[in-house]
Amino acid sequence: MEKKNLIVGQSGGPTAVINSSLYGVVREALAHPDQIGQVYGMINGIEGFLGGTMLDFREALPGEKLSWLKHTPGAYLGSCRYKLPESLEDPVYPLLFKKFQELNIGWFFYIGGNDSMDTVSKLSRYAAQIHSDIRVIGEPKTIDNDLVHTDHTPGYGSAAKYVASTVREIVLDASVYEKKSVTIVEIMGRHAGWLTAAGALARKYPGDNPFFIYLPETAFDPEDFLAKIEQAFSKNCNVVVCVSEGIHDEKGTFICEYDSSVGVDSFGHKMLTGCGKYLENLVKKRLGVKARSIELNVSQRCSSSLISATDQKEAVLAGSYGVLAALKGETGKMVSFKRNTDSQGNYQMECVLEDVNAICNAEKPVPAAWITPDGADVTEDFFAYALPLIQGSIDIPFGEDGLPAFVYRK
Amino acid sequence: MEKKNLIVGQSGGPTAVINSSLYGVVREALAHPDQIGQVYGMINGIEGFLGGTMLDFREALPGEKLSWLKHTPGAYLGSCRYKLPESLEDPVYPLLFKKFQELNIGWFFYIGGNDSMDTVSKLSRYAAQIHSDIRVIGEPKTIDNDLVHTDHTPGYGSAAKYVASTVREIVLDASVYEKKSVTIVEIMGRHAGWLTAAGALARKYPGDNPFFIYLPETAFDPEDFLAKIEQAFSKNCNVVVCVSEGIHDEKGTFICEYDSSVGVDSFGHKMLTGCGKYLENLVKKRLGVKARSIELNVSQRCSSSLISATDQKEAVLAGSYGVLAALKGETGKMVSFKRNTDSQGNYQMECVLEDVNAICNAEKPVPAAWITPDGADVTEDFFAYALPLIQGSIDIPFGEDGLPAFVYRK
Repeated sequence: MEKKNLIVGQSGGPTAVINSSLYGVVREALAHPDQIGQVYGMINGIEGFLGGTMLDFREALPGEKLSWLKHTPGAYLGSCRYKLPESLEDPVYPLLFKKFQELNIGWFFYIGGNDSMDTVSKLSRYAAQIHSDIRVIGEPKTIDNDLVHTDHTPGYGSAAKYVASTVREIVLDASVYEKKSVTIVEIMGRHAGWLTAAGALARKYPGDNPFFIYLPETAFDPEDFLAKIEQAFSKNCNVVVCVSEGIHDEKGTFICEYDSSVGVDSFGHKMLTGCGKYLENLVKKRLGVKARSIELNVSQRCSSSLISATDQKEAVLAGSYGVLAALKGETGKMVSFKRNTDSQGNYQMECVLEDVNAICNAEKPVPAAWITPDGADVTEDFFAYALPLIQGSIDIPFGEDGLPAFVYRK
Repeated sequence: MEKKNLIVGQSGGPTAVINSSLYGVVREALAHPDQIGQVYGMINGIEGFLGGTMLDFREALPGEKLSWLKHTPGAYLGSCRYKLPESLEDPVYPLLFKKFQELNIGWFFYIGGNDSMDTVSKLSRYAAQIHSDIRVIGEPKTIDNDLVHTDHTPGYGSAAKYVASTVREIVLDASVYEKKSVTIVEIMGRHAGWLTAAGALARKYPGDNPFFIYLPETAFDPEDFLAKIEQAFSKNCNVVVCVSEGIHDEKGTFICEYDSSVGVDSFGHKMLTGCGKYLENLVKKRLGVKARSIELNVSQRCSSSLISATDQKEAVLAGSYGVLAALKGETGKMVSFKRNTDSQGNYQMECVLEDVNAICNAEKPVPAAWITPDGADVTEDFFAYALPLIQGSIDIPFGEDGLPAFVYRK
């Protein structure tokens, strides 16, 4: 069999383990030199590839440096938010495949979320149409955990561990004064509340703060929210609440739209900020107590010190599994996670393949049954689901400067 | 000698190692059972003590649990922002000393910043006035690092390590797209820029992001800021800037006041938020590029996973040193840090005592010579000063829930 080359790219927003998936793909590819020749990385995803920017992993990250990808946040290869045209008749497709041919590409890997799986879908459909034998495989990543046909996604476990640990620390910080206060923690998640739900894991004992968890899966009622806080003061003068950035009222109006401006990103998604700030001001005005809002912001997806060892291991496995599947001839698939339970009832994860066309452009919300009837908390089912995903912590090499040492392109 | 009891309290905002100082005081106190009887903690500082709330450390944190204080953020004993009256003729003083007498207190320890040292000053002066033999000792803590007559303060090293590590991660996260962007990181510090300066430590190599560091020690010129960013785009399309929450223009007007409302805390300090948001909007409007602002918020003072081992060790030492000093009869003093250099030129720290009256109500800014002439960066002198303080990381016990395990009062 003639050797072909492999190319891998990253797309969409980074996660703490998107580079672990990259490591899994590259390490596995390098382990099959009889079938896979060069192992290329496209810089800034498919958009950068169209512009001709790429690297060779054997040169860029020789030896041990490759494994440093596993604790390096951001997207090592750079990313893009480029959407391929809907019509496969568009001239960009023959252009792309001409480039693939010039580089003797046999395997194309794309690590990303929803929108990236759309790219995998289109490229694999176009490949079939022109009878190209290029294998196109998607590697999942998203802190939002909203991909369908997978138990969970790489990136979620680490983001959830960051959110839970940080909320636990914020609760201690917010509890030092014996004076009524409300702390609102705003957590990422436009439409799916998986990450906000992880705030509930921060409780050190039943009945601990954060007292309330508000997800975008249910309608948010500001009056009920204020009434619940008033009631909570009878238990603890310091009340901590976790809210998703995407909470909305029963008419579907985002709470952040009540008083702030919004924009639209290049995929047409509404860009949200500020429901925490809005609720902070509402509490101050209506309840007359001290209030603070904290936006956890990008550290949710780029904190290295709270990477979940389970998440990291699974991201590497997914990368590796995808390469083995492609070598067997699979294409147009996304690597997916299936949850199993061993004979002792312990969590186990198995990689499987799913048709990428069934995954792109769909979103998986937190099940309604996992949200309490009052819409202000999650049930034990969520704890059982999420706890295995945040287990284990990793050791990070620290440099002479006392800071985490990462790999990067200069 | 008749045995006396020791009482210790915490005051002001917490730091990641304020409980390490507490551990140092309590462990040392328990090691002298011939001189020190009970070891009490006042709950919610002097204000809580006046209300009668306290605990006994032998009961509250027996055995190994005491050492968990070293990685537990927040203030274990709770805190307060209570300022003792200026006049020592106020009836609160005899009331306090009557309570001390009832509890047979011989040693009073207070862990805090500027305002807490004011309490230590007043109590020690009142004790002298009434010829009480109670020893009153201050243990320094502040992430702001703005106490005078000490090389640095416990809490700063860990906050600086958190800021530097997090900015390094943010730089990776902010560099994934090949599209002009400005990321503004807003860092705590009203009047002193020590913590914001730590953002410069995030650079992985000379000339790396964050490109600009703006401290409150110099006047901030928005036009010059915009011009500098435009120039920086020629080097890198992704520009990261660190700004102190307290930056102001040459007239002294805080940048955050340009468009947001401000309040005043119980000590009469202006409460600031939002210069990052203001600059984000300014960049969007004037430069027409993507901009984001990130407020690091309370994690700067309560992140356990990025505690500096050096800072933690020194906080414990300061607590211990204060007890030994009090046993020798010292009073009205704050434990202070003196920097030494060993024969190999390595950093070493020595505890000394300073008159608390010379410390309270004064602030130490970053020296003007450590700021570059253009006011947009710090010099090598700052690096030499700060790097030893962020060295070493600590291991935190993780519970069965996969999260950091802390001690707390329920």
